[in-house]
Amino acid sequence: MQASKRNGSIGIVTPQQHDFDTPLPLTCGQILPHYRLVYETYGQLNAERSNALLICHALSGDHHAAGYHSEQDRKPGWWESAIGPGKPFDTNRFFIVCSNNLGSCKGSTGPNSINPATGKHYGPDFPIVTVRDWVISQKALMEHLGIEQWAAVIGGSLGGMQALQWAIDQPERLRHCLAIAAAPKLSAQNIGFNEVARQAILSDPDFHGGHFYERNTIPRRGLMLARMLGHITYLSDDAMRAKFGRELREGRISYSFDVEFQVESYLRYQGESFVDRFDANTYLLMTKALDYFDPAADFGNDLSEALRQTRCEFLLAAFTSDWRFSPARSREMVKALIEAKRKVSYCEIEANQGHDAFLMPITYYFEVLRAYMERIAEEAGV
Amino acid sequence: MQASKRNGSIGIVTPQQHDFDTPLPLTCGQILPHYRLVYETYGQLNAERSNALLICHALSGDHHAAGYHSEQDRKPGWWESAIGPGKPFDTNRFFIVCSNNLGSCKGSTGPNSINPATGKHYGPDFPIVTVRDWVISQKALMEHLGIEQWAAVIGGSLGGMQALQWAIDQPERLRHCLAIAAAPKLSAQNIGFNEVARQAILSDPDFHGGHFYERNTIPRRGLMLARMLGHITYLSDDAMRAKFGRELREGRISYSFDVEFQVESYLRYQGESFVDRFDANTYLLMTKALDYFDPAADFGNDLSEALRQTRCEFLLAAFTSDWRFSPARSREMVKALIEAKRKVSYCEIEANQGHDAFLMPITYYFEVLRAYMERIAEEAGV
Repeated sequence: MQASKRNGSIGIVTPQQHDFDTPLPLTCGQILPHYRLVYETYGQLNAERSNALLICHALSGDHHAAGYHSEQDRKPGWWESAIGPGKPFDTNRFFIVCSNNLGSCKGSTGPNSINPATGKHYGPDFPIVTVRDWVISQKALMEHLGIEQWAAVIGGSLGGMQALQWAIDQPERLRHCLAIAAAPKLSAQNIGFNEVARQAILSDPDFHGGHFYERNTIPRRGLMLARMLGHITYLSDDAMRAKFGRELREGRISYSFDVEFQVESYLRYQGESFVDRFDANTYLLMTKALDYFDPAADFGNDLSEALRQTRCEFLLAAFTSDWRFSPARSREMVKALIEAKRKVSYCEIEANQGHDAFLMPITYYFEVLRAYMERIAEEAGV
Repeated sequence: MQASKRNGSIGIVTPQQHDFDTPLPLTCGQILPHYRLVYETYGQLNAERSNALLICHALSGDHHAAGYHSEQDRKPGWWESAIGPGKPFDTNRFFIVCSNNLGSCKGSTGPNSINPATGKHYGPDFPIVTVRDWVISQKALMEHLGIEQWAAVIGGSLGGMQALQWAIDQPERLRHCLAIAAAPKLSAQNIGFNEVARQAILSDPDFHGGHFYERNTIPRRGLMLARMLGHITYLSDDAMRAKFGRELREGRISYSFDVEFQVESYLRYQGESFVDRFDANTYLLMTKALDYFDPAADFGNDLSEALRQTRCEFLLAAFTSDWRFSPARSREMVKALIEAKRKVSYCEIEANQGHDAFLMPITYYFEVLRAYMERIAEEAGV
């Protein structure tokens, strides 16, 4: 079937890009003299410019949130289930923007870009970026697009944290914040998992201190391990049981170190396919951005005080089987928002898919999104 | 202080060993023509030989469960808190045996032993061993020691599974089975974590297909990653929060890939110190033994049917914050034991230390062990 005719899809989309020449002072102290952001837009900005939504992507995500890149394209954008005509983020009513984060490897300036100062890949010299830096760069994109205020900033996981940072750092620039399956900061366990993933990459002899591009190699083993580990934390124990159980790939035990259980096969496949589409330096940067996210830190570790900076309304959602960013973490934010006297809706969704649930078209979850977005649409007059 | 005078300790202990020349047919189909087991004993076997306890160790454990190896020894055995005069496993009343599992690297025959057939290290040629094989080898040790029946076989984690296997495979040889923080089989998530650990080792260029001994190298990076990952799963999220929170090692964020958070420092230290005291081939074997453990598999996947083979009584215990082998997994076993009409006591212990709790002298936990062991002592007439 042609992509443009696929049912309920926005159809063919074309990534856009913009080069920014205003230097960007980063949280780490360095300055990025110029940078590129790639992004996609879906739907039309109305005359009042009141219907713009910003979608923020997760750790390994990108700007391609919906639609197809060509008629032949087999896989749609990562949030195709939620973005499109008649979908919760309705492209018939909203103008939707999704940009690739700085430091990524999908087109926006990052470690695999050429550093104009040296003519070589940035590699490990690309500065550490934070969620706050992403908000600043997206604000520049917002201005470029002629948008004064987002009807909503929306994201899941790391993207949800980014939506939260928008609400704190740019309170006048958004009317709603939708933070799904997020947390106010990482736990020691979260950081621990990230650290194992980083050590897997950093210790891979093919990493060459991050200068692997020049050597025509990739730290395959390290990046594969990092992704395998990540995948375990995206799924719940229940979801893995339902998906694989203890099914044997060949139907019998071989008493060897070859793949025996289906879950091993799945994890190895996930790891191997990731290596070909993701950059190791970017993976390091993204895990660090997660570790550093802690908006309360600037307000004496008082999350309510941090959230008192906000002016928008909030929808928070979490999934019962998500042990990476559990409902308890969302409830911390709800409590702090209530203490800060902000309007917050919170929804805890029964789902056994673990953290990955935020990407899935779970009926009750999508009903909540639809209902909340209906309100935003009415306010926006669309 | 001199070890022999340390309060409540059994004092100085000396490991013993025995070489078995009766060939051991292994589950994998191979035969081990001869093998050595190292073990320690604490307390005295009574004239009736009714007071012998077998302690089974966990994945990276060994035969040194209690006491000290010399006056200068700084660290006691791994279950010093529970084994000794007046302790739950009371050396004034019981004769306690703890042997190192086959395939280990602590003295019993394993991959780092010399294969008499080749004069070289077994390395990757050491056969895959299962929990069932360990029971057979320990039964040979039992006979060597002149013990007809254990008053109890006791273990935590993988050791608890081993105690369970004893009860199923050698029903007449034990009167009680104490399986703590165990599971009737691994979940897909458990296997997933083990697989990441194995891949970390197998993909380390210094692993050399398991023949690293001849090359005077160690797959340090892989073994370190495996241990770091293991440690995260031994601790609960809460325990890590209590222990490290988001404490920074240098008090401030450095925006680099150096150690920043205390939890990173802890995990790296745990990983690095493990490399010097554990063998990579053994680590692979032990994770496989865990993956394969599934006593119900031989009984049409009916755990009750498997447990109907047993004749002993059971004490099962689990810890509320243990997410590696959660209380739900122990309850599966309790349910199956009740269906099999076996006598079972079960205790769910409030503890926030995660899986590691089974090694800790938690008041209520130790009270339960004491009470249960008192009964065993009375039955044994000691």
